[in-house]
Amino acid sequence: MPTLRDLGEFEAIRRLTRQSDPGPGVIVGAGDDAAVLGLEPGHHLVATTDAFVENRHYRAGWLSDREIGSRLAVANLTDLAAMAASPRWALFSIGARPDRDVDTLVELARGLRETLAEHGAVLVGGNLAAVEGPEWLSATLLGETPAGRAWTRGGARPGDLIAVTGAPGRAAAGVRNLARDRSAHATWWKPLEEAWRLPRARIDLALALAEAETVTAAIDVSDGLAADLAHLCEASRVGADLEPDSWPRDPLLERAAAELGLDFDALRFGASDDYELLLAVDPARQAACAEIARAHGVPLAIIGRFSSQAGALATLDANGLRRRLDERGYDHFRSGPEAG
Amino acid sequence: MPTLRDLGEFEAIRRLTRQSDPGPGVIVGAGDDAAVLGLEPGHHLVATTDAFVENRHYRAGWLSDREIGSRLAVANLTDLAAMAASPRWALFSIGARPDRDVDTLVELARGLRETLAEHGAVLVGGNLAAVEGPEWLSATLLGETPAGRAWTRGGARPGDLIAVTGAPGRAAAGVRNLARDRSAHATWWKPLEEAWRLPRARIDLALALAEAETVTAAIDVSDGLAADLAHLCEASRVGADLEPDSWPRDPLLERAAAELGLDFDALRFGASDDYELLLAVDPARQAACAEIARAHGVPLAIIGRFSSQAGALATLDANGLRRRLDERGYDHFRSGPEAG
Repeated sequence: MPTLRDLGEFEAIRRLTRQSDPGPGVIVGAGDDAAVLGLEPGHHLVATTDAFVENRHYRAGWLSDREIGSRLAVANLTDLAAMAASPRWALFSIGARPDRDVDTLVELARGLRETLAEHGAVLVGGNLAAVEGPEWLSATLLGETPAGRAWTRGGARPGDLIAVTGAPGRAAAGVRNLARDRSAHATWWKPLEEAWRLPRARIDLALALAEAETVTAAIDVSDGLAADLAHLCEASRVGADLEPDSWPRDPLLERAAAELGLDFDALRFGASDDYELLLAVDPARQAACAEIARAHGVPLAIIGRFSSQAGALATLDANGLRRRLDERGYDHFRSGPEAG
Repeated sequence: MPTLRDLGEFEAIRRLTRQSDPGPGVIVGAGDDAAVLGLEPGHHLVATTDAFVENRHYRAGWLSDREIGSRLAVANLTDLAAMAASPRWALFSIGARPDRDVDTLVELARGLRETLAEHGAVLVGGNLAAVEGPEWLSATLLGETPAGRAWTRGGARPGDLIAVTGAPGRAAAGVRNLARDRSAHATWWKPLEEAWRLPRARIDLALALAEAETVTAAIDVSDGLAADLAHLCEASRVGADLEPDSWPRDPLLERAAAELGLDFDALRFGASDDYELLLAVDPARQAACAEIARAHGVPLAIIGRFSSQAGALATLDANGLRRRLDERGYDHFRSGPEAG
């Protein structure tokens, strides 16, 4: 078990970036000063970056090294899914302690690489820095879209439907349970904990929905549904009328909310790490959208409609009563560790 | 002076990425899930990432926030210079303490942005994470080259000349002086300290040399001249015969070596942070190369020749005696803080 100090930076990076197939479009891969990459003609480049910090985004014992790498991949992949972009290439930047066993970092890189590969992307470079305090991992993911085809947050129109993938809130419940005593890990918590530990990137679904021209705007739900909805509304200069009662029930999440002593809506709409997509759907394409989601095996709930009242986020109850939505999501600088 | 905790992540990122002109090729800039970027037709994408860690790559008091940002830009720009790529777009990833004054981070982003802008690149996105320990800054820089025109480390041929820009070793001397007592900061140290504090990216020179087809391989000298020369030789499967006596003297560096009690060659060839370029030059193009360097006002020394003895790094003294070059450069996991 050589440590980083034993092996040194260059050999460690070599082990972290080693792979059999350089991948399509990779003209010069990891190991030179920079990677050289070829986009498809007529395509735009799409670029994002996301980072995890030890003890804030994860804790030793909650995730294996491989799962940490995989989750970092999903965090970045989800940004590209929200742009309807095809993932192609990634670079990592890691701050690791000198006494870190290199094999554990190789496992982390393997998790990152495997999850990227599931969605067509390869590692093309990286940087390793030594740290004394908490470790951190940052990745930049590059993808491409046919020119003019990227989704943005800014395209939602009044009347478009508000759709959300997966089961937001489950990850927030799962990580809260992980933070509790280990004896609390009853079997029924497993799907909730896995929602946090092993999120799925919605790349394939996003590409199919984009291909079918069903979506007018998109954002990823990584800060909490209400907060991300507010961001999308701001960019599109629209409002949102949510109808939570039209959303299928989630009995498991209800049970978790009760056991955690939390409000169900606070879990579903609040600070989260779901890596789901929030979409504005053209009402004329609702059936096509539902059909594509079904074909991909991804739950897609229509939870309301965008309105012309810019910035106004409201929920409508079964009696048609409006009330203002609390839009507070997860903010890394305002929440403590493990807040979601 | 609002802190990150006061403002929150979203508003802070907005302030860090705000700029008047989105820049050429930026279809969607900062503020969406990812940036959308348009390459010139017939060009390849070139991507690199580099990071600084507080107390390891810099210390409070040695650099202003603006200088830290500028230096991080240079670290990344130099990687692109070593590929003869034109810088275009950058993303940052920052781990900052919640009580960090946002205005100081804005200054840091300004330094990053201004130095990028000098070389034609713009910030298109970023991520902010909260940390409790030492802060860190990572940047990914994207550029482009006409397809097939990127320099790599692998093109040097036996007989090609070994050329180096600037005055390697000065940054290492300067930072060692900064680490000493403040009373040691005599005026004559200033150029050495500035070599460390305010390095220059050799982008313009690299692009001109590439245009003139004078260079067969390149690497940036960020880990130390001997270590980086060894990397280039390994990738090109050649050896190197250095003739240090053919290199113009650097009396200031000689004085610094004496005062620091260090071997002059150890400073010039050892662990460093010079951000200079080490080039393999086609001997038939030596005059053109020298002329271009002169026109750009950049010192370019021919310090030896590549040999056919793969992996053999030697120095030749004035009497033609060969001795093996110690190739140890800077390794973040083997050296302590401020080792170079």
